[in-house]
Amino acid sequence: MKNNFVTAFAPASIGNVAVGFDMLGLAIENVGDRVSARKVEEPGVHIKEIYDEFGEIHMNLSKEASKNTASISALDFIETNNIDFGVELIIHKGIPLQSGMGSSAASAVAGVVAVNALLDEPLGKKDLLMHAIEGEKFASAGLHADNVAPSLFGGLVFCPQDELPNTIQLNLPNCISSIVLHPDLSVNTAESRASLKANYSLSDLLKQQSYLSGFILGVKESNLNLIERNLKDIIIEPQRSSAISCFDKVKNTAMENGAIGCSISGSGPSIFALCKNDDAELIASKMKHACENQNLKCETWISQSNSQGAVVE
Amino acid sequence: MKNNFVTAFAPASIGNVAVGFDMLGLAIENVGDRVSARKVEEPGVHIKEIYDEFGEIHMNLSKEASKNTASISALDFIETNNIDFGVELIIHKGIPLQSGMGSSAASAVAGVVAVNALLDEPLGKKDLLMHAIEGEKFASAGLHADNVAPSLFGGLVFCPQDELPNTIQLNLPNCISSIVLHPDLSVNTAESRASLKANYSLSDLLKQQSYLSGFILGVKESNLNLIERNLKDIIIEPQRSSAISCFDKVKNTAMENGAIGCSISGSGPSIFALCKNDDAELIASKMKHACENQNLKCETWISQSNSQGAVVE
Repeated sequence: MKNNFVTAFAPASIGNVAVGFDMLGLAIENVGDRVSARKVEEPGVHIKEIYDEFGEIHMNLSKEASKNTASISALDFIETNNIDFGVELIIHKGIPLQSGMGSSAASAVAGVVAVNALLDEPLGKKDLLMHAIEGEKFASAGLHADNVAPSLFGGLVFCPQDELPNTIQLNLPNCISSIVLHPDLSVNTAESRASLKANYSLSDLLKQQSYLSGFILGVKESNLNLIERNLKDIIIEPQRSSAISCFDKVKNTAMENGAIGCSISGSGPSIFALCKNDDAELIASKMKHACENQNLKCETWISQSNSQGAVVE
Repeated sequence: MKNNFVTAFAPASIGNVAVGFDMLGLAIENVGDRVSARKVEEPGVHIKEIYDEFGEIHMNLSKEASKNTASISALDFIETNNIDFGVELIIHKGIPLQSGMGSSAASAVAGVVAVNALLDEPLGKKDLLMHAIEGEKFASAGLHADNVAPSLFGGLVFCPQDELPNTIQLNLPNCISSIVLHPDLSVNTAESRASLKANYSLSDLLKQQSYLSGFILGVKESNLNLIERNLKDIIIEPQRSSAISCFDKVKNTAMENGAIGCSISGSGPSIFALCKNDDAELIASKMKHACENQNLKCETWISQSNSQGAVVE
């Protein structure tokens, strides 16, 4: 007999990955959200409690089911698949809110993965993506999967809008690690998006699409030089970096210490870098130091390239 | 002893290939320019004669060495490499002028390949690219290699501006053919470029970069569906297609008959389609018929995916 209570973990993620605004994402290890789901007779989805990363009751999130990405996704999953039970969710936020680390996406993914695990015959991950996106839409007001897809599938995922629910799993060379630094600042994703320029020159458009394609080719060919030469964002980063007071110092420090590339994770304020595995500890500590020198507390995480994504625990 | 007279053939090419404005090009078989080069004592490069596709003296091209892409490229090659002889060129234009089939690029490539073949120790093709681009700049007033590179190397070539002289050879699946239809119209490349819109929306920018990346991934993974779904140009084609009176009819005909994609070759007026090998004859004849129904004469060529590029004959 199937368990009536399951817990799913969904990792944080780096959105955009510099080159692929809204369409490229990379999962991060060792940090994520957990959602526990219990079968209940009452139909629908109910949030019993939300805890913060310290295990305390979360002070900044509503328990209304219509206002949390985990419950919205879970409900969409239940309704679409005509599931004949209700669920009660307990959400453990391991990812700081508005950090640019895919916090809302991880809750959405963990919510739907947990409810799916309650089924006698759970669906495959591919069938879960659109439900997680449904929740993510509530948080970021757009149809994009650059956090949801890596959080669900793991690793580096290319998720072009026109292709959803199809996404393309890319494998970063195994010698590459990612570093994420989260400075103690907050940025509102929706506001950050609304403030982007409406129009871009043909020259910038062509350069950026060349970087994205070159980066993807570098990944497909495991060509570190090609990855490094193309891991650039001339479109979004220049518009958002000024909102992150430590950005320039942290990025310069990462690059001076041998990072392959460094940019904003999602809409920030988190900053990510890619680097060779052997350089990761040193670069992460230098980035942290550069941030703290700006009188900003921060936390860092180092991840291997190709993680497994969301799991039932 | 080395021959003092050689002839090089460089094929026509499809510039842009819909998805990759200025950075993607595909060589065409069985149509191209020939340049014969003869060592002479007089330094520099001199054009002895230019013939048209019928073997007649070309009426529309100047024999001034500073006004032909073949001689400009050849001179750049000679000067850069401190070559101690002069050359006399005979140019046979097999590609219609201002056709969007890379006519100026093919002359540039054939010119430099021919002169290189006169050396006791000829350089490799990679070392010839920038000289051919130097000639191409005269014709199209910009640093891009989307015609020159496929004409030189053959097949499908990705040529990001920032990466030159590095280009990336892509192999289209062998089951794909290209069709080029050249309607009896002319379009001026420089004017066509100057009339492009200056600014583009973020949404269009993202869609187009997604198409380019998706197409390249489709090629790398030999995934015809992915190629087909992404072989689109929402940026340039809508601005240029109205100048080609037969475009809509020819494109619709190609797509209705099973083409994988259809768009403008370079700045037009030529139209290209990609399709499965078995469909190529039928689609080409239907496209021709659709064009002639608009009271426009035209010529078509069918090519296999991966040709060899420029050759010394």
